[in-house]
Amino acid sequence: MNKVIYNVLNEAGDILKKKYLQGQSAHEKQRWELVTEADIQVEQLIKARLGEAFNGDGFLGEECGQQIGDSGRVWIIDPIDGTTNFVMGKPYFAISLALELAGEIMEGYVYNPVSNELYYSTKRLGVSFLNGEVISVSQTANVADSLVAFGFSAKMTAIQRYYQDWQVLFDSCRKGVSWIAPALTLCNVARGRIDVFVDFGASIHGHAAASLILKNAGGAVFNYDMTEYSYQSTGIIGCASSMTDSLKGL
Amino acid sequence: MNKVIYNVLNEAGDILKKKYLQGQSAHEKQRWELVTEADIQVEQLIKARLGEAFNGDGFLGEECGQQIGDSGRVWIIDPIDGTTNFVMGKPYFAISLALELAGEIMEGYVYNPVSNELYYSTKRLGVSFLNGEVISVSQTANVADSLVAFGFSAKMTAIQRYYQDWQVLFDSCRKGVSWIAPALTLCNVARGRIDVFVDFGASIHGHAAASLILKNAGGAVFNYDMTEYSYQSTGIIGCASSMTDSLKGL
Repeated sequence: MNKVIYNVLNEAGDILKKKYLQGQSAHEKQRWELVTEADIQVEQLIKARLGEAFNGDGFLGEECGQQIGDSGRVWIIDPIDGTTNFVMGKPYFAISLALELAGEIMEGYVYNPVSNELYYSTKRLGVSFLNGEVISVSQTANVADSLVAFGFSAKMTAIQRYYQDWQVLFDSCRKGVSWIAPALTLCNVARGRIDVFVDFGASIHGHAAASLILKNAGGAVFNYDMTEYSYQSTGIIGCASSMTDSLKGL
Repeated sequence: MNKVIYNVLNEAGDILKKKYLQGQSAHEKQRWELVTEADIQVEQLIKARLGEAFNGDGFLGEECGQQIGDSGRVWIIDPIDGTTNFVMGKPYFAISLALELAGEIMEGYVYNPVSNELYYSTKRLGVSFLNGEVISVSQTANVADSLVAFGFSAKMTAIQRYYQDWQVLFDSCRKGVSWIAPALTLCNVARGRIDVFVDFGASIHGHAAASLILKNAGGAVFNYDMTEYSYQSTGIIGCASSMTDSLKGL
């Protein structure tokens, strides 16, 4: 793994971890200021470090928007995947970093600095790693055996939409949860801990890196309507490949 | 903090952390065997260490049931608060340990070994700590400003029950999430990161320790129907005290 990328993920991760553990948040407004501050700081750090190392690369950041380069390469940054978790005290958030070239994701990095879980993959390598070990998806093939994560919080309109679109999965899976950090959750599918992830709202920043990690771990990704995946679409379905037929049959 | 308790929490936490990070789980059945194994191992370790140190104490464990002592003191153990998170790859699980005497919780400990967050409180001290620092609840007083956690997963019957019972809170809070590790989530209320936690299913093992931590951090606890809290009841409402009037008005 490239040293510059490894170092900047660690440096940015330390910022997040420190802010997460120290965060004093007695007032509602301060909580969101804290996260916005962390978001901007991490994104600027990554842009600065990668900009130095990879002259001419462009950036697409969740906080600072687009910056065109002349190399054709674009770094897609989600400084905090799972901001609500960061604010509300759940160490399930990550830095997500993807390298895009000519409409394809070439590299993907997802790093949870609190649990120290670093997932990555590159198109060239064709495999995916968690902390240096090769990972692979589960072999689950049936809805009845599946562990499923849906990307909703406690918002009834969203829950009803998921339920309408995925009622059989909802009612018949072995266990369903509602998790709201798409990059990490896709990596948990890649890792074989979860069999299916369903999210209609995940942004390009949240799923671009993890989609490569999941594919190279033997998984499958689709747009939310089960059409061919585009990293530029909003929403994503990620699953162990052995689940694909079951999902298409729903 | 008592050295025996501190040491056993660390030792047990290391077991969980290691199993969590290494857990290979390609097959659905193995995933649950893994967690059951970890559950039993941690509970037995805690019983062994505390049994040696505090002769005559009794135990009430989630895995091994009740063991009567002759001191009148009972240790209430939840070896893994948040087992689903443990299995599915979210580092939001904890060991929960409470000391009960004559119908009262005297001490409470909640430890997330991955994020290394150790919450504790004792009746005698009257304050609560996170990693040695005194913590306190938020000052949020209105539903519209509140961050709320509900204890449901993606199970429609449960969601509908929460929605029926708490529709105004659901629809009008600043942000609502569904989190399923009651001990840690009550501690996040104690820590001022969340304003309200609502759970109809939390067991005595899951909320006994955290209820003391929350009370001693300036919070309020109730049974699920907003009657006076009993640690033996199933379900719990925990909130910053400033939220009590708003919740009672719903």
